[in-house]
Amino acid sequence: MSDTGSLEALVQALRRLPGVGLKSAQRMAFHLLQHDRPGAQVLARALGQAIDRVGHCERCHTFTEEPVCAICRDERRDATRLCVLETPADQAALERTGAFNGLYFVLMGRLSPLDGVGPGDIGMRPLLDRACDGVVQEVILATSFTAEGEATAHALTEALRRRGVRVTRLARGVPVGSELEYVDLGTIAHALADRR
Amino acid sequence: MSDTGSLEALVQALRRLPGVGLKSAQRMAFHLLQHDRPGAQVLARALGQAIDRVGHCERCHTFTEEPVCAICRDERRDATRLCVLETPADQAALERTGAFNGLYFVLMGRLSPLDGVGPGDIGMRPLLDRACDGVVQEVILATSFTAEGEATAHALTEALRRRGVRVTRLARGVPVGSELEYVDLGTIAHALADRR
Repeated sequence: MSDTGSLEALVQALRRLPGVGLKSAQRMAFHLLQHDRPGAQVLARALGQAIDRVGHCERCHTFTEEPVCAICRDERRDATRLCVLETPADQAALERTGAFNGLYFVLMGRLSPLDGVGPGDIGMRPLLDRACDGVVQEVILATSFTAEGEATAHALTEALRRRGVRVTRLARGVPVGSELEYVDLGTIAHALADRR
Repeated sequence: MSDTGSLEALVQALRRLPGVGLKSAQRMAFHLLQHDRPGAQVLARALGQAIDRVGHCERCHTFTEEPVCAICRDERRDATRLCVLETPADQAALERTGAFNGLYFVLMGRLSPLDGVGPGDIGMRPLLDRACDGVVQEVILATSFTAEGEATAHALTEALRRRGVRVTRLARGVPVGSELEYVDLGTIAHALADRR
């Protein structure tokens, strides 16, 4: 309909969100316009503000509103250990455990040749420079245990070892709280091989 | 983290969308900031524009940027038949069939006492006035065939019949292209009772 151009434009804009198809976008637009116009305003402002303010940390590449993020600025953290992750969400998950006191390098993605994501896109070069800066003594690879995450970890391991950097990988094994019966076979096999 | 307030605000704003939880909101925010900043800008603008411009048609209550929507303004349509629907999406679906040439009344919701949606919220009063304006000869109820949609249709039928208005309901039956074996029993029972 010609007199609902703004509605159409909103539906099309919502469809650009990952995991949102036509039906979901229509449902979202209807909800915002019919039941939550303040929410739509909040979202519009939040988008504008995030675009303006959020950039990448010069040191670890994670999202931050400062040139260098709070974790990288924290002098109490152990700069000899560098943990490599795929996304800020993964970083937040690891931070919440409270089990790691080192610094991070966030790839902001993972190697994925089919999607055209190569070593340059995940900051391979800056990571190698950082790992060889004389301060870092161990690089802990915490990329996902998916095909692409494993491939990324493999490529990084090769490149780092060639430069004589000590590389470790998060342990694979049975998740805490799970019954063996319900754990997939690949995980059990890894847990057996890596038993301690 | 204190230096990612704008990112946090964006994630919280995205969570207000229907069907979007914390993980989805984080994924959306990451996608927009890392891979599609133009998309974020387009969405922010589309939201602002839709809030400013999209209102409700005075006659049928659907979304429109004019006081009266294009369909209600169209003189070639048959004003003696009025089809009652729940949402503009339902209306768009019916329009796409090309099988209906009458006018619409969009409830912008359905009766749902548990959610606090009563007759006033779906425009029961304006609908009754419209149905009794002397032009409308038949009201076709096309609310959903769900519990709430049926309850809405029932309440509207009662009120309209008391005023002597002719009320019909979309036929229930076996969907086109389906094999009987895979159709639910309630639908088959209705199709049998309403056979023609």
